[in-house]
Amino acid sequence: MNNYKLRFVPLGGVVGVTKNMYLYELYKDDRLTDILIVDCGIGFPQEKELGVDFIIPDISYLADKKDKIRGVILTHGHEDHISALPYHYRDLGSPQVLTSKLTSAFIENKFKEFKLNIRLSQIDYDKEYRLGAFSVSFIRLTHSIPDTMHLFIKTPVGNIYHGPDFKLDLTPPFGSPPDFKKIVEAGSQGILCLLSDCLGAEREGLTLSENAIGQTFEDEMRKTKGKFIMTTFSSNISRIRQCVEAAIKFNRKIVFLGRSMKENTRMASEIGYLPIPHNFLIEDKEVPKSPANKICIIAAGSQGQYDSALSKMANNKNQFIKLVSGDKVVFSSDPIPGNETEIYALIEQLSLIGVEVIYPDIQEQLHASGHGSQEDLKFLVRFTNPRYIIPIGGTVRHQQRYQKLTSDLGYQKDKVLMLAEGETVVFVKNNAYKDKTVETKNIYVDAYGVGDVGNVVLRDRKTLASDGMVVALVIVNNQGQLISRPRLISRGFVFEKEESDLYQKAVRAMEKSLKQKGQSQAVNLNNLKKEVIKNLEDIFYQEKGRKPLVVVEAIQI
Amino acid sequence: MNNYKLRFVPLGGVVGVTKNMYLYELYKDDRLTDILIVDCGIGFPQEKELGVDFIIPDISYLADKKDKIRGVILTHGHEDHISALPYHYRDLGSPQVLTSKLTSAFIENKFKEFKLNIRLSQIDYDKEYRLGAFSVSFIRLTHSIPDTMHLFIKTPVGNIYHGPDFKLDLTPPFGSPPDFKKIVEAGSQGILCLLSDCLGAEREGLTLSENAIGQTFEDEMRKTKGKFIMTTFSSNISRIRQCVEAAIKFNRKIVFLGRSMKENTRMASEIGYLPIPHNFLIEDKEVPKSPANKICIIAAGSQGQYDSALSKMANNKNQFIKLVSGDKVVFSSDPIPGNETEIYALIEQLSLIGVEVIYPDIQEQLHASGHGSQEDLKFLVRFTNPRYIIPIGGTVRHQQRYQKLTSDLGYQKDKVLMLAEGETVVFVKNNAYKDKTVETKNIYVDAYGVGDVGNVVLRDRKTLASDGMVVALVIVNNQGQLISRPRLISRGFVFEKEESDLYQKAVRAMEKSLKQKGQSQAVNLNNLKKEVIKNLEDIFYQEKGRKPLVVVEAIQI
Repeated sequence: MNNYKLRFVPLGGVVGVTKNMYLYELYKDDRLTDILIVDCGIGFPQEKELGVDFIIPDISYLADKKDKIRGVILTHGHEDHISALPYHYRDLGSPQVLTSKLTSAFIENKFKEFKLNIRLSQIDYDKEYRLGAFSVSFIRLTHSIPDTMHLFIKTPVGNIYHGPDFKLDLTPPFGSPPDFKKIVEAGSQGILCLLSDCLGAEREGLTLSENAIGQTFEDEMRKTKGKFIMTTFSSNISRIRQCVEAAIKFNRKIVFLGRSMKENTRMASEIGYLPIPHNFLIEDKEVPKSPANKICIIAAGSQGQYDSALSKMANNKNQFIKLVSGDKVVFSSDPIPGNETEIYALIEQLSLIGVEVIYPDIQEQLHASGHGSQEDLKFLVRFTNPRYIIPIGGTVRHQQRYQKLTSDLGYQKDKVLMLAEGETVVFVKNNAYKDKTVETKNIYVDAYGVGDVGNVVLRDRKTLASDGMVVALVIVNNQGQLISRPRLISRGFVFEKEESDLYQKAVRAMEKSLKQKGQSQAVNLNNLKKEVIKNLEDIFYQEKGRKPLVVVEAIQI
Repeated sequence: MNNYKLRFVPLGGVVGVTKNMYLYELYKDDRLTDILIVDCGIGFPQEKELGVDFIIPDISYLADKKDKIRGVILTHGHEDHISALPYHYRDLGSPQVLTSKLTSAFIENKFKEFKLNIRLSQIDYDKEYRLGAFSVSFIRLTHSIPDTMHLFIKTPVGNIYHGPDFKLDLTPPFGSPPDFKKIVEAGSQGILCLLSDCLGAEREGLTLSENAIGQTFEDEMRKTKGKFIMTTFSSNISRIRQCVEAAIKFNRKIVFLGRSMKENTRMASEIGYLPIPHNFLIEDKEVPKSPANKICIIAAGSQGQYDSALSKMANNKNQFIKLVSGDKVVFSSDPIPGNETEIYALIEQLSLIGVEVIYPDIQEQLHASGHGSQEDLKFLVRFTNPRYIIPIGGTVRHQQRYQKLTSDLGYQKDKVLMLAEGETVVFVKNNAYKDKTVETKNIYVDAYGVGDVGNVVLRDRKTLASDGMVVALVIVNNQGQLISRPRLISRGFVFEKEESDLYQKAVRAMEKSLKQKGQSQAVNLNNLKKEVIKNLEDIFYQEKGRKPLVVVEAIQI
């Protein structure tokens, strides 16, 4: 066995919470033989205000290795674990994909949108799957989405327990509780390394069961005289199901609003995960026909997103549904850090209309995290009893808190490996060490497509956001001589009218600079532009202490 | 298999919390073949103020069955699980006793005090033990005393998981965490019935780990300029060990005070469960020779018991140890219900001296319950996945709360059997029903011995406590005629001096009554006594509205 080596390569997910993508590479005699990929999700960048929709993992490291890829496993159906796959699927060599029932439905739908085929197998929990030299069994776990799994991966070097996003929910409102038997059995076969979710490592105790929320929905619905509106993540099928069940109990018709909400609930219904009696499901245009206290609206927009279904209602932009006093909006989700401003603005707007708004700050048991707290995390360690541990799915502070927890469980610091993105770990028999780092970069996706939002664009957007932009139009002849006076257009820099002196000065500087250049015959427009930019930047900085984005458009006639 | 029947008989422990003693009876063709006894502990009666020290289970039901007893298993070393065994051992036919290491040390010591031999085997966790038709394996659990076990009992009718007092402590300061592997493996073999501790069923979440207390001891010790005194249950070896470890860290010599504390810590030390460097252990008489800040006293008396080691110090009755301002007393135990008055009086007394007193009301993490809270209890159900459940070790309200918990886990009410003492359950293949009740009574033990404190004595003590006593001395001749004037002696009724009118009246009434009786020849002294008692009771009730205990001593000369 000594000629085998296992290398763990996180292409994402280790410090950024989202954008989960992990590689397990097996080497025999230092030759790469097999790669197993776990998850391929999108990430949510800090720079979201700059027009970036999301980021996807950088798989350029895999470019010359795709013949070694034995399969992709998706652990659950959240965006940050599955949604990058359609972008990369062909570049990965269109490998087989294995996942659970709900995740299958979600990923199939995504591939359909991309007009792509996928080689997809829905796994059987009772089977063990051979993927190259890897042997994988799937373990039922609980999270904020049904059909969440952990993986028990046997390799020639040792056994890996891959334990992403989970909590130990003993009373899931839908689906089975965690399969403790399989977890512990995996543990009893000897675990070389546990990879564990660590996002909840700062919270004491055990995470609240998802089923605590169902009672809250009933209690709130009972007290609501008008329309009942619930908003949460559209992937949280269990949560939505509990709201649906309460609505049926109180004889309220159900309306799904928002594209993702409609899509996800439709898919969940199709596979039997969200049963709704036929006459209970209505469209928004039917709402005005029913009494307000017979309506339950389940809407996307819990993060205060601009133009979300909820936001539209709050701003009276829904053609059919008008919110009024007596209606109640329940936010059954915690703010994702960074979204607080938008969420509170939305709550403010709803309150203004006279709608009663219930959100986790003012009412407990409205949202249960999908991630295990300290005790959930400790249980997993005790169950699996690993030799090494790698915390995944959290930021550095979560990793550090997790390390402290495991030290209470008796783990030395050198047994708990905290990784940055691209930082790899090599396992040999009974041993592990950090190996060289794989270079990765963020690939930004915005409305225009993949990857065309480079770092330069982002830097520009940042500059625009802070210092504005100045565009200089320069028209020159073949000799680079100015044909007309340069023009300056600015936005977000200084108010042009009030600063005409500055602009005059800038124009004069350009004229001067260009006249000097105009003497040579073959003018290099690019050099000319650079010259002008430098010139203008200097003037603006000297005069205003600011560095607007300066763009020079030189036209040669 | 259909000719087998298993009957569960709780001789104690099901509603009274303490006095744990359970029988498993196996019948073949309705003939009793084997009995397994689990635990044999003492109980703490409500009537403790009446001079009763404790109660023991009533084993008269077993009188004609002792040849069927295949063994006694003690699940852990607490008094309410082991301490009645010496009283009953010979009446049970001196059966073999199986238990863990620390419990062995404790029970052996008890038998020594009783000058009794015991057939004792210390169990091996890796073995399965055949006891008649039962096959028992032992599972490591955690509680407030090391070496606590659960039992997996295979019977011809089905498998029983016997799960008394426990919490799921992932970080026990001493010993192993619960053996999740064995628990879950037991579950995967199919459990007909789980018997589960239910005392913590009212508390949300998971119970605090015992190891949280160690840090608190260190923090408190660091801040203490004078002597550090800790009091807890003397059986809580883990707690004591944490205090000892903190003392060693702060270079404080350790003094154990109180008979039970000295005994238990000596036994624990002998088997290696409480290592103390030799020069760290001193006697109380050596305390005055050391600086106060180099002393750590671990004393019995956490329940405010009269004449306990702590109480004696508080009342300046310890010859060598004087408590002064700057000393600190830490109560690392919650009050057992009913003891609050004594405890707060003791805290008051200590505070008066100027000692700083720290107790759970004012400081968290001073005491961790030994019993699992709601989540611990739910985990055990999920791990074992039983068909039936019997909550044990709690009162009726704990049983009911436990039933609610299990209903959240999907258990119908008819699957959770709540038993009163003596109420039995019969198991046949895949089925269970309540069977006829075994009559039991409380057997009271006080300083004078076993069982001589009957219900009459208790009723008298209650009367004495509330209304006092009057003794009438009557001396009569053979004809029942009064030879001298009757005398009345009273205590706790009315003050004799101030109420001489009343006594005169009572004496006259006796004289009158006895003169009437004096006419018959052969006087019946018993009837005479009853007559006088009735007479006096009537007078006292009419005049004072009270019913003292009236005792007539009639002497015939």
